[in-house]
Order: sequence, then C-alpha cells, then structure tokens
Amino acid sequence: MSKRLRLGIIGAGRIGKLHAENIAYGVPAAEIAAIADVNLSAEMEAWARGLGIPKVTKNPEEIIKSDVDAVLICSSTNTHADLTIAAARAKKHIFCEKPVDMSAPKVRAALGEVKKAGVKLQVGFNRRFDHNFRRIRETALSGAIGDIQIIKITSRDPAPPPVSYVRVSGGIFLDMMIHDFDMARFQAGAEITEVYAAGAVLVDPEIGKAGDIDTALVTLKFANGAIGVIDNSRQAVYGYDQRLEVFGSKGEARAENDTPSSVRVSTREGVTGDKPLYFFLERYKGAFVAEINSFIDATLNNKPVEVTGEDGLADMYAALAAGKSLREHRPVTIAEILKDEGAA
Amino acid sequence: MSKRLRLGIIGAGRIGKLHAENIAYGVPAAEIAAIADVNLSAEMEAWARGLGIPKVTKNPEEIIKSDVDAVLICSSTNTHADLTIAAARAKKHIFCEKPVDMSAPKVRAALGEVKKAGVKLQVGFNRRFDHNFRRIRETALSGAIGDIQIIKITSRDPAPPPVSYVRVSGGIFLDMMIHDFDMARFQAGAEITEVYAAGAVLVDPEIGKAGDIDTALVTLKFANGAIGVIDNSRQAVYGYDQRLEVFGSKGEARAENDTPSSVRVSTREGVTGDKPLYFFLERYKGAFVAEINSFIDATLNNKPVEVTGEDGLADMYAALAAGKSLREHRPVTIAEILKDEGAA
Amino acid sequence: MSKRLRLGIIGAGRIGKLHAENIAYGVPAAEIAAIADVNLSAEMEAWARGLGIPKVTKNPEEIIKSDVDAVLICSSTNTHADLTIAAARAKKHIFCEKPVDMSAPKVRAALGEVKKAGVKLQVGFNRRFDHNFRRIRETALSGAIGDIQIIKITSRDPAPPPVSYVRVSGGIFLDMMIHDFDMARFQAGAEITEVYAAGAVLVDPEIGKAGDIDTALVTLKFANGAIGVIDNSRQAVYGYDQRLEVFGSKGEARAENDTPSSVRVSTREGVTGDKPLYFFLERYKGAFVAEINSFIDATLNNKPVEVTGEDGLADMYAALAAGKSLREHRPVTIAEILKDEGAA
Amino acid sequence: MSKRLRLGIIGAGRIGKLHAENIAYGVPAAEIAAIADVNLSAEMEAWARGLGIPKVTKNPEEIIKSDVDAVLICSSTNTHADLTIAAARAKKHIFCEKPVDMSAPKVRAALGEVKKAGVKLQVGFNRRFDHNFRRIRETALSGAIGDIQIIKITSRDPAPPPVSYVRVSGGIFLDMMIHDFDMARFQAGAEITEVYAAGAVLVDPEIGKAGDIDTALVTLKFANGAIGVIDNSRQAVYGYDQRLEVFGSKGEARAENDTPSSVRVSTREGVTGDKPLYFFLERYKGAFVAEINSFIDATLNNKPVEVTGEDGLADMYAALAAGKSLREHRPVTIAEILKDEGAA
Repeated sequence: MSKRLRLGIIGAGRIGKLHAENIAYGVPAAEIAAIADVNLSAEMEAWARGLGIPKVTKNPEEIIKSDVDAVLICSSTNTHADLTIAAARAKKHIFCEKPVDMSAPKVRAALGEVKKAGVKLQVGFNRRFDHNFRRIRETALSGAIGDIQIIKITSRDPAPPPVSYVRVSGGIFLDMMIHDFDMARFQAGAEITEVYAAGAVLVDPEIGKAGDIDTALVTLKFANGAIGVIDNSRQAVYGYDQRLEVFGSKGEARAENDTPSSVRVSTREGVTGDKPLYFFLERYKGAFVAEINSFIDATLNNKPVEVTGEDGLADMYAALAAGKSLREHRPVTIAEILKDEGAA
Repeated sequence: MSKRLRLGIIGAGRIGKLHAENIAYGVPAAEIAAIADVNLSAEMEAWARGLGIPKVTKNPEEIIKSDVDAVLICSSTNTHADLTIAAARAKKHIFCEKPVDMSAPKVRAALGEVKKAGVKLQVGFNRRFDHNFRRIRETALSGAIGDIQIIKITSRDPAPPPVSYVRVSGGIFLDMMIHDFDMARFQAGAEITEVYAAGAVLVDPEIGKAGDIDTALVTLKFANGAIGVIDNSRQAVYGYDQRLEVFGSKGEARAENDTPSSVRVSTREGVTGDKPLYFFLERYKGAFVAEINSFIDATLNNKPVEVTGEDGLADMYAALAAGKSLREHRPVTIAEILKDEGAA
Repeated sequence: MSKRLRLGIIGAGRIGKLHAENIAYGVPAAEIAAIADVNLSAEMEAWARGLGIPKVTKNPEEIIKSDVDAVLICSSTNTHADLTIAAARAKKHIFCEKPVDMSAPKVRAALGEVKKAGVKLQVGFNRRFDHNFRRIRETALSGAIGDIQIIKITSRDPAPPPVSYVRVSGGIFLDMMIHDFDMARFQAGAEITEVYAAGAVLVDPEIGKAGDIDTALVTLKFANGAIGVIDNSRQAVYGYDQRLEVFGSKGEARAENDTPSSVRVSTREGVTGDKPLYFFLERYKGAFVAEINSFIDATLNNKPVEVTGEDGLADMYAALAAGKSLREHRPVTIAEILKDEGAA
Repeated sequence: MSKRLRLGIIGAGRIGKLHAENIAYGVPAAEIAAIADVNLSAEMEAWARGLGIPKVTKNPEEIIKSDVDAVLICSSTNTHADLTIAAARAKKHIFCEKPVDMSAPKVRAALGEVKKAGVKLQVGFNRRFDHNFRRIRETALSGAIGDIQIIKITSRDPAPPPVSYVRVSGGIFLDMMIHDFDMARFQAGAEITEVYAAGAVLVDPEIGKAGDIDTALVTLKFANGAIGVIDNSRQAVYGYDQRLEVFGSKGEARAENDTPSSVRVSTREGVTGDKPLYFFLERYKGAFVAEINSFIDATLNNKPVEVTGEDGLADMYAALAAGKSLREHRPVTIAEILKDEGAA
C-alpha cells in the first residue's frame, strides 16, 4: 500500500460530499482517486474538479475494480450491503455509512464476506468521535469516575423529518436512536443485554398514523451490570439537543450542548445565551473529520478500526429489541432478538 | 381561629427540631404552643426554652387535646397514621411528615378521618417548595415550554444509609424515590399511570443481601401522555445530586444543583468549581421554610394545601408499582396497584 | 463576661433591624438587651417585643451606660464617631456600621479612644463575609493561585439612589466604591499605595449637576506589587452586579453573581437564566449573618476582629485618593493623602 | 477582475502558511497564484505544491509585478511598509499583517500611497472576526444593551515569549495590547481619546531588565464618553485567557473563553471543566478564516474592508500613548501623541 491512502467514494449526496471535502481539505494522508454517483451531473463534476478528484463516474463498480486502497460507501442504504460485499471481494478496505443494511441477515452476510476477505470495515457512527463524548469516554477509561453505573443520553432533533421519510425510515429506533444505542455501548464499554421502550406520539399525529412514534424513552441494561436510559424526541424547538452523562462509583462526567458562541447577554428581561448548534452537520462537524482520519489511520497503519461491523450489528439488535419491546409492552433481551434473527 | 396560628409539634427529632426552629425564627404568623417527644430529655427542654416554646411533654395526646389550631406530626413513621386520626378527630389541622403510613389501607383510613373532620392535611413533600423546581413548574404553567412531553429527574444521595436502616426502610422506591414520584406528578400536572423499574445493586452488596437495590431507573407514563424517567443512586460521591429537566413542545426548563459558592478556580490542572451542596438539609433548607409557611398560610387563610394526603397516597401507589415492576420484571399500571390494594 | 454576649443596638433603621433579626433568629451566643432609636415609635416597640428585646429607648446613652458587653452602632453616619468614643470610654466592645465618620481626623480620634480603652471595634464591611468572596480569599491563602498579580472588582448597583441622597453621600468613592476598596485590600492581603480614577456621568445628568459621577473605573497599585481595577456603575439594569476576579502566578479564582435559581429555559428564542439577585440585602444576606457572628465570636473568645477601624480608615484614604485623582486628573498616592490629612 | 480572486502571498512563515491553508482549503472564491519567501526551502516548495500553488519564489517583487489581484503581506514586520507601498503602486489590493510598521510616520507614508493608488488595504487584526467578540458587537449594534458605558477586556497569554523576542518586540503595548486597543475601538464604535497605564514586572524579572513590563492595566476614555479597561499578562498558567465585557445603559454582553469540550467531571475532589484553548492559533482559528474571507469579499465585491490602515494607525497611537503614560506616570491623550508624532 502506498504511504498516501488512495480512496474511492461511492455516493455523492450530502454525506458523500461532506467526506470528500473533509478529506480534500483536511486529510493530507489520503487522496480521493475517484467518486461515483448514479445521478451524475455537470454540477457534481465541477464540484469534483474543484476538489481535485481526477475521476467521476456513474458506476460504482469502476471504483471497486480500480486500484484504490479503500472505498467509502455513502450511497443509499439499500445499496450498502451489496457494495460492501463487492468491495470486500475486491480486497478493498471499507468505510460504510450506517446502517450496513436494514435487515440483520444481510448485514451478517456482508460482515462474513468482510471477514473472509480480511479487509477492514468501519461503520459511520460519527458521534463516537465527537470531542465531548470522547472526552467522557477517556475520563471513564482513566478510572476517574470509577465503575460505570448509570448512563443517560439525551438525543433530540431540532425538527421532525417529513412523514414520507418517516414511513421508510425503519422507525425511530433504527433511524434515530440507533446512534444512541451505539453511544451507550461505546460509553458503557459493554454490550446491551436488555431494553424496555416507552414511546409516544406527541410531536406530530401524522407520525403516529405512519406507524411510528416521535418521542421515546428506552431503559437499558448492560452486561457489566450498569443501567442506562436514552430519550429521543423528533422535535426540540430550541435546537439539536445532544447530551450525555456517565455516572460511576467515583464520580460523574457530563457533556452539555455546543453553542455558536459563549456570549451571555444580561438585560432587564433576563440573562440569555446561545441555543445549541442547530443541526447535526454543525454539531458533529469535527466528529466527521475525526472519523475519517481514524479510518485512514487504521487502514494505513493496520490498526483496528474504532467502529466495527459488529458494532453496527449490535446497535441494530438493540434497535430491534426496542421496537419489539414497544410493540409487546415488555422488556426484551438481546438474546431473544438473536434467536428471532436466527443469530444465536 | 386567632390571627397567629398556634401550633403543637409532635416529635422533636431532627425534622421536628428543624420545623420548630424554622417557625420560631422565621414565621411570625405562627407560634409554637407545645412540643411533645417520647424521649423527652433535659437537653430537649433547654432547647425548647431557648426557642420560647412554653410547654414540653412526653405525651402527644396532651398536644392534640390542647387548644392548638394545628399539629405538626414529626414522630416516627409508624405513629403517623394514628396521630393523624387522633388529630383529625380533635379538629386540628395537620401537617404530617411523609409517609402518612407504610400501608396504603392505613393511609386511606387516615385520609377518611381527615375528610370527615373537615380539617386540612398537608404531607411533608418539601421538594415541591424548592426554589429551582418551583421555578420550573412556574415556567411550565406560564406556557413558556408548551405541552409537557418528557420529565427527567436525577436524585442521588451522597452516601448510602446504614444497612440496618435499609432493612426497615420499605425499600428504595418507598424510602427514596417516593420524593421523585411526587416531584414527577407535581411537574407533570398529571397522574402517573404506569411504571417500569430497572434496578441494580452497584453501591453495596450488603444492600442487596438486605433485599433492596441501590441504583434504579424508573420509566413513567402520565395520564396526559407525557413520559418520564427517574434515576436514583444511594451514592453519588460528589454530593447530593438533585436535578430536574422538563421538556415540552415549546422548549425545556432545566435545574442544576445548588453549590456553596459560584467560584471557579483555573490552574494548570483545570478549571474547578464547587461540588453540589452535600446534604438534603442544606439543599432543601429554603424548601423546608417555604413548606411550613405554605401550610400556615393555607390554614390561617383557608386556602387549599399544596401537598394533599391524596398526593401522598398517589406517590405511594407509584412506589408500590415500581416495586412490583422490579420483582415481576414487567411494566405495571397504577390501576393494577389500586386493584391489589383494594382501592379501585 | 457572661458566656452569652449581651448586646445593645443603637439605631433601629433598616440595617439596625436587620442585625437585630439576624441575632435574635440566628445567633444563640448573643442576646439583645436593649435597642435605642431617636425616632422611637409604637411600631418599633412592637417589633422589638416580637424579637424578645426587653428594653427599648430613645436615648443611646442608656445603652452605653447599661451593663451590655457590646454595642452595635447602626444610627446615622454623623453620630458614629461620637457614639464610638462614648462606647469605648464605657468599655463596651463596638460593632460600628461603615463609615466611622466622613472626616478622617474624626475617625482617627475615635480609633484613638478605642485603642486607649482596649475594647474591640469591628467596622461593618459585610462583603468580606460573603460566601463567594471569602472562598476566593481562602483559595488565595491556600497558595492555589500563587502570588496575586491582578485583582478585578465589578460592583454595580441596580438603580441609582435619589439625587438628594447623592448630594450628601460624600460622592461615589466614599459612598459606594469604599466597599470595593475594602474588598481589594482584603483580597490583595496588602495595602493600596496609589490610585488613578476615571469617571463619567452616563446614567443620570442630575448626578453630574450634583457634583458627582455615576460611572467609575479606578486603577489600584498595592504594596505587594499587584495591580487592580474596580468598576462601579450606579445602574446595571439587570440587577446587582457583584463580581470578583483574583489572578495570580499559579492561577485565577473568579466569582459570578448569585441568582435566585439555577434554572435555564431553552426555547426557540434562546436559552435564558436568572438575573443576579436584585439588591444588596438579598445578595449579602448570608454575609450580614456571618459578619455579626464573627464579631460575637471575636468578642466572646477574645480573638482579633476581622475588619478593624484601621481597615475602615485605609478604605477611606483610598476613596479620598480616588476623589483627588479624578479632580486633578492624575494618579494619587495614599502617602499624599496621609500628608493632606495630617496623618503622616 | 476575474470572479475568482487571484492572490499572491508574501512570507511563508507561520502566519503566511496559515492564511495559505485557510484559502486553499476553505475559500473557493480565491486562488493562490504564487507565494514568496526569502528563506525558500525544498520543504516549503513541497508544501506549496501540496496546496496547489503554482509558483514559489524568493522574490516578493515577482509577485507584486505579476497579474495577481491582491497580495497578502505576511513577511517580517520591518518589510511591511515597503511592500505595502510597492504593492499599492502596482495597484494590488493589500492584506497586511499587523503592524504596518513600528514607526507611525512610515505607516502614514504607506497609507498615503494606498490612498493615492485607490486600492484596498486590510490590516490583520483577526480578533475582530472572532465568533464571540463579533456576537457582542452585533448585540451592541442591535441596541439590545443600549449606549455603551464600560468596556472590559482581559487578554492574557499562556506563557511569555523569549526575552530575546521581548527586547525587539516594541514592548507590551505595541506587541500585545495593540490587539486589545483595536478590540476596544471596535467594540466602542468610537475612538480612544486618552489612556492611563499601570504596569508591573510580576512574571519574569528578565522582562523587566529588558526594559519592558509583563503585567499591565490600561484605563481608556472614548470619544463617545464611554470608559474602559484592558488587562494584560504575559502568563496565565491555565491557558490563553481572552474575555470581553461590554456594559451599557440597557444591559451587558459578556464572552467567556472557548474550551476544547463542554465536559464537567464531578468527583469527591470537586467539579472540573476544561481549561481555555491554550494558544491563539486554536482560539482564533475561525477568526483567521473569517478575516481572509472578509478581505476577499471586500475586494471581489468592492465593499469597504472591515479593518482599515487607519484602524491600525489609531491602535498604534493608543499603544504609544500607553507607553508614554507608563513612563511619565500620568494620563496621556491621543491628541498629545498626534502632536508628538507630527500627525496633528
């Protein structure tokens, strides 16, 4: 492998472009050799040229079959598993946006191919690379807060997605809370063993009609004895609310939201500060950069990736358990889901 | 009734003394006519004299049969219900420390006598009068945060009680989380309809051997559709951790811990601030004063009390439901508890 | 001296009443034997009775000549020096509200009598006993922030006093900033050696017509080499702004304002918190109690008082220097003021 | 002028490289046509190639005489004025790092040439573009805090520069506080009319031997009647301390330091948060990007630049006044400096 990693990107939508720009402008250790998108346009070609990407194509196979060292799979979710399999067979290292697939068997099939090929696969759970959440994990790993006992995650979007999206999203647990399941497992340093989900339709009745909920509280039990809770809302009118609290035998670490400025204004009416950064692209701006750097570092220097395909699968099982818990109105173990899924 | 309320206090332990001093030093609208304690001592008599309390006795009946307008029942829990009944029959207004009894039927019996007598009864859930939590409730009532959707309560003690106490405490839900059930109902402005409890023994295995847990996460559903979660730990090594967050359709209100000072010290090692106030007597100092003032105001001016016997009963049902949920590992409705208790 | 200190209070205005109530309700080690006020009224007598003060009189001499151990001088400023002298001659310990007098020679004369009599004299600079500022001083004394280099004091009133008061107040430096000079000396652990004052009339032109300023910035030099700055405004519309920052060779300690609650409300409009406590009686509530306790402790246990007459005099010299600096538009040393005052 | 601005950069030291990278990676509206550095090295050439800069040279003249639209002057201070003059004569727009020169007459000469040529000149006071300080200025301009009355600036470096640098730096006022004079003028929306400087050598006696001070407090008066204070220290051991407070007739706006994360850790020992970002490159990272964007926008779209040569000159006069004030131990007006400098 060359000292500079040669990358191909598949999918030039919002997230593919984001990664491309982060790499072009901020990752000297990598170069983008090609980018593919089924909806190739003149505008996209101009954008790619601007970034110095030499090749643009409609066909992802061209990239997979080229001499790149690794591919970034940023296309639509339904293509992830097949592209992962194809890339693995072509012996390319893989960064795949989450989720690898909406069906657990397909994910397992893809992971099997990855294993067989001996390539690296990192799944795009970017929040693990967030400066605040990472600082908490490092604090816990340092022993400063002792054994972890309670994990609390708040994760609320600024506004609900269109109902048309909700309908095909896989539901709040697979679409939104899956990030939080991943964060919970990351922070606990242990697997989730059981979940109990309480949910409600409080934001928009149309979401309820679409068969989903928009507000959820999920209780977690972890293999190391810790317990946890995640709360999700599709609408926090004050902005993107992303907080975390890890409580242990020797202390607690807590992250507040990031804000555009530190300014407080005091007037007769009160003391006012900034709202949280409004959207995930702003809030996790640095996390996206760190995530890609981590993948490139793992690939170039043959280190383990920081978010594995198995992580993605475990997160999905937690989401499936939460869905079943909500439907059946009882706590559901991950072991039960593994059985359901023919994975145990 | 005289314009200045004449009070008798039954029980001169920690909490009875606290109320006595708060009234003597801070409530011009009331006077303490007498205080009773079964363990009457010379020291206690001297203390009472110092506060200008004219009469000290071993016998609570002397107080109940005297010409006081109201009694404060601060004796041991197992005497609360009988004293409440006796006081009600003597037509005294009653402030009773929580809980009225550990048995729901006895509580109901006591509430029946109170109703028959037409006297006022306020139960000692002091936290409703805390400056932070009250500010949040006022914010919600003002409409500023819209319809309430999620309530999150953190309530952690600085250190566990002796295991001998744990054994007779009724368990974490009746002993500790009952305050939080009351806070949850107060903040929701609605009754709890269902709970699900997750618990663990993470602080002290002896607590487990005593048949209790020391760490708990309880999910709540409310009659108005809101959902909530309470987390308890018997040991937060950094101090008494009492926080609240109410999230609604138009915003969120959040209370942090109170600290001894606002000072931050910046050194090479970091930026350090105060830990939370360490104990409930410091944290809820103002709440205890406000609570008694509220009772005296309600009594003198014939207003409704702010925490009723029915509140205490509802809090107890939530605690019983949490216990059953933990034992049976399933969500439990309050309706089910009412049936269990013969109350429905 | 009896184990319980017998006190007489001279002056039953706002501050005399405050001390009386703090002692009656919060200082078991002292009792108020008598209170005097030239404007004795039936209402005042009822109030004193309510506090259990056995004697009320129009004549301060009756108190000075009585068998009390100590007197609190809370009458109007122009009587302080004479009463201090009389009390000293009668061998009473003295707590005197600030300032001892508006004329330095009179203060020196009073201090001379106090010294001759060998009684204690504490001057009412209550802010030294504030929880925040005291914490900073303790931090500095612990060595945690190293040698003190810069002291910054913000001290702003919520609203200007009536211009009629401004006219007789002695000016912003003697009336308002004198508290900050005292704080600066306390925090520096060193005397002020030179000041430079910049001032402006920005709040109310009538204050300017009365010969005073309403906004001031005073630079300080201390005998230990540190430098400092105080800013005053007669009007901070958001409330009483009282902050302090001490910067040293090993770090910095900083105190923010106290607020009624810790609640933050997040809405579409922003994140809003409480304004500072509005008035000095609320902000320094605890400081007034601690101040009196300190005096009683010093007196009962023969310890040095924490704010001496010499402190009051040094604060006054700083204020006089600031006034001269403003008038003559140049830095002015304390040594120069001592010469002006015939004190050097 | 082409729609994409063609830039030449003179000087490829730390700051020249920073600008080059910011433009290459973050400013699509501009392209770097060439870069010059007297100490041209192979490493520098490789770095330039990596950024896609087509031309690298030792000779700044080559750039000035080329067809670029604008030059960025990032070479050593003693070359700024001459390069500015040469660039102006060549009709290039100019971004010049601060200061334009250490001698006011040379600055004025350069500004004269700029004016004659009709080109734009922006001086590199990057802090005006900081997210926090800009938010405060916008708040003030919105009227939310009324008329400005007091400005307080804290500006402390994490560690002192080498004494060898101090010796040629021009002194703390021209080297360090000049940024704060610029900030003060920016925030006041008015010119400084008078300064009074207090200074001390508290960090390192060697700085004193070099004829400079390391700790300073400067009082400011502004043409609009406001007053202000700046404090500088060459060593804040906890990191780069950059705060600002603007107080007005209707309120106050205050910026705290930025920190690497929002995490607070609570343990038995206390509650600890992050120190400020340690160095100016981190703290003002975004400001450097915004500054260059602003220059490019002004140049491409023929808008006024946000920091003019006249700003740089006025900041220098304030610094000179502070130096004179310190030496002569008296307040010094800007008018007096103008006379000294033959500029009035």
